[in-house]
Amino acid sequence: MMHTERTRVKRLPARGNYDRETIYSILDEAFICHVGFVADGQPFVIPTGFARIGDDLYIHGSSASRMLRDLAKGVEVCVTVTLIDGLLLARSAFHHSMNYRSVVILGTAELVDDADEKYKALEAFTEHIIPGRWAEVRWPTELELKATSVLKLPITEASAKIRTGDPKDDEEDYTMDVWAGVLPMNLSKGEPVADTRLADGIPVPDYVRDYER
Amino acid sequence: MMHTERTRVKRLPARGNYDRETIYSILDEAFICHVGFVADGQPFVIPTGFARIGDDLYIHGSSASRMLRDLAKGVEVCVTVTLIDGLLLARSAFHHSMNYRSVVILGTAELVDDADEKYKALEAFTEHIIPGRWAEVRWPTELELKATSVLKLPITEASAKIRTGDPKDDEEDYTMDVWAGVLPMNLSKGEPVADTRLADGIPVPDYVRDYER
Repeated sequence: MMHTERTRVKRLPARGNYDRETIYSILDEAFICHVGFVADGQPFVIPTGFARIGDDLYIHGSSASRMLRDLAKGVEVCVTVTLIDGLLLARSAFHHSMNYRSVVILGTAELVDDADEKYKALEAFTEHIIPGRWAEVRWPTELELKATSVLKLPITEASAKIRTGDPKDDEEDYTMDVWAGVLPMNLSKGEPVADTRLADGIPVPDYVRDYER
Repeated sequence: MMHTERTRVKRLPARGNYDRETIYSILDEAFICHVGFVADGQPFVIPTGFARIGDDLYIHGSSASRMLRDLAKGVEVCVTVTLIDGLLLARSAFHHSMNYRSVVILGTAELVDDADEKYKALEAFTEHIIPGRWAEVRWPTELELKATSVLKLPITEASAKIRTGDPKDDEEDYTMDVWAGVLPMNLSKGEPVADTRLADGIPVPDYVRDYER
């Protein structure tokens, strides 16, 4: 991983991490990324789904999407992925914070023209949301492939930032008579809700019922 | 709310929403925002906590933070907040998607100099994470106030985008013998974990035990 000045974690450097394994585990757990780019001098930050294949991150959308058209020009982009792991309840207001894992990737994206690579990316988007799904559903038609733009961002300049463990308090505050600790947070699933037009007798598949991120 | 060309939802305009009430309900439910800004021509997207007071959004951080110093110059900023509500399992790979609620705010932030306003913002940050907490904890000292930069972004140019309900499939796919529907997702709390240095006999407060977002 390129460890550049631009992606070096400067504030609280102990939280910085530059291992591919760490960075990829955060990417693979998250559902969405926030894509930052500049258009007409104005920064925009747009949430969108994504998938990782090897050392590349893919995003996609309608071929009519303004964001994808802008990005396909090869402008500088920043893709950020964030997972919230817990609320840090310290003894002082000042030290309230959160446990989190985040990744920042810098680079330029390119439009994927190759039909096979595009198809593989569409498979990865579906499997990224819910592994096991691709085998069951109708696969993309040529028309759908044409209506979809897929962009690839090589993961070469990236860093992770991780905050974990107990809240940190000033030494003199530890004697205070107030509860302190972590309230863990987790994006978790509810009960599956069948489509109102679902035909009778189709059970919820195991990979949905037993789904864990 | 200013409904400008820049914040108008162009793709799938039916998902666009410009009511303050809707926008504020999304902001108030989220824990973090993603702040987009440009430094040396490169867009950056940084996750951070925030709070809303009236028609202003506040962020804060160390006075040494590069991001806060950059933003305090009055550069253009985009603040995006996203909540994931569910995975949309359609019958075709193409229509797989997510239910979500997001807000995009454009504008320029300003450094908060007024001590009272800064203090009120610090209270709002704590209460935004967990209502009821401020009354129990040690409040900020003058030194802590000085070590903290607070930035205010007026919520004047903003839009929400909301996707809800069933997946959408092509008419001919509704006869397929595959389960379809929504797998709801929710950022939910786990069991509180006491600080390893918590003194004996301090119970978990009700506002932690019964916490619901």
